Amino acid sequence: MEKNNSKVILVGAGPGDEELITLKGINAIKNAEVIVYDDLVGENILKNNASKDAELIYVGKRKGKHSHKQEEINQIIIDKAKENKLVVRLKGGDSFVFGRGGEEVLAIKKEGINYEIIPGITSSISVPEIFDIPVTHRKVATSFTVVTGHEAGDKSENEKQVKLEDLNAQTIVILMGISNLENHVKKLLKNPRRNENTPIAILMDGTRDNQRMVKGTLGTIVEIAQKSDVKAPGIIVVGDVVNVLDI
Amino acid sequence: MEKNNSKVILVGAGPGDEELITLKGINAIKNAEVIVYDDLVGENILKNNASKDAELIYVGKRKGKHSHKQEEINQIIIDKAKENKLVVRLKGGDSFVFGRGGEEVLAIKKEGINYEIIPGITSSISVPEIFDIPVTHRKVATSFTVVTGHEAGDKSENEKQVKLEDLNAQTIVILMGISNLENHVKKLLKNPRRNENTPIAILMDGTRDNQRMVKGTLGTIVEIAQKSDVKAPGIIVVGDVVNVLDI
Repeated sequence: MEKNNSKVILVGAGPGDEELITLKGINAIKNAEVIVYDDLVGENILKNNASKDAELIYVGKRKGKHSHKQEEINQIIIDKAKENKLVVRLKGGDSFVFGRGGEEVLAIKKEGINYEIIPGITSSISVPEIFDIPVTHRKVATSFTVVTGHEAGDKSENEKQVKLEDLNAQTIVILMGISNLENHVKKLLKNPRRNENTPIAILMDGTRDNQRMVKGTLGTIVEIAQKSDVKAPGIIVVGDVVNVLDI
Repeated sequence: MEKNNSKVILVGAGPGDEELITLKGINAIKNAEVIVYDDLVGENILKNNASKDAELIYVGKRKGKHSHKQEEINQIIIDKAKENKLVVRLKGGDSFVFGRGGEEVLAIKKEGINYEIIPGITSSISVPEIFDIPVTHRKVATSFTVVTGHEAGDKSENEKQVKLEDLNAQTIVILMGISNLENHVKKLLKNPRRNENTPIAILMDGTRDNQRMVKGTLGTIVEIAQKSDVKAPGIIVVGDVVNVLDI
């Protein structure tokens, strides 16, 4: 019987810091024959761990290169797996937190290809954490919600989307929300649980050397952000947890 | 000048599987002179990585041993750090997702002790993931909420707590909720976004060899759980994502 490596492993690479990937993730990268990777994957993770013989395929969306559609990415993964290769699909953060990993798993399953999912450290929890903001804290927040601030053009998606003003958890983490900050703040203020004094933090380049935080309240943050040259990408955290570890 | 190792590193150990801890977490454990650890930390993580000279202090709550109050745990960490020791505080999952890490950081900060926080893989996202349930999925769930189902006896805490029926995110992950399943299902059904047909999954011993999943709907799950010998600890996931990767 021929050797059959044919398998896809989805690996979450974590928030950027090359040591915030799991042991299991590193082992998968070391063994991979093909690595299909995105932006947001720490540069050194590949450099220091991928085999010299591994084929590295970049499918990210920045750096002025051709932007791959999700269907194209699915097809690359499937084609490589069908060449009897061990394929690692490497994404920043966790594959299932706005990472479209579910769509890739569906495509792989439909082809009957073996797969495995290795969780990653999601930036939605870890980046606030590194800035001393716990998403939960006793007597302050017993629930947190993570939501995308990215308004997709697809209407059928928008219909399903819960409105920001309807999210009631004590902590709200908004990913991909900086470019639309003013609009998000208006919506957050429509919820009676929040007001002009509700704390909010904007976290940029979390876990990287140039990481930076700007804090304010729902009443002040839009002006503060303008003065502080806040820019995407970054993470927004809303709720009393923002200041709970300040002494 | 005397050597001063005095530092506390909070490390999230991940959901159980000894390879689902980060490289940074493993390195901290290897260097630790004192390790203060809980239940829910994978047994082999300590066995295979802690130094032979490290002092291991168990402060968990099971196995019929004395249950440490949070204040006692804080004091142990502080006392050891003040002995000029490098202390690792090792918890299951992530320290800030219902891990009371925030309280420990506050106690450490008040003493002026150096500290560092190393994120862990939270079971709230990774365990559903390993059972093929993505907490977000395009056109299905653009938000998810994580909430504790554990009803604390402390009244002041309950007043702050958001009611389960008011949580609107498309995916709801309930930690520590199995022993009160019937009550939680009743509350979930009070929210107009959900009904008797809303999918629900109960995940037990995720990432361990004996992991097990039971699926149903809000209308059927209480009976199914009784027949299937569902028991705590485990994770409850509610929403269309439960079945979105089924083909």
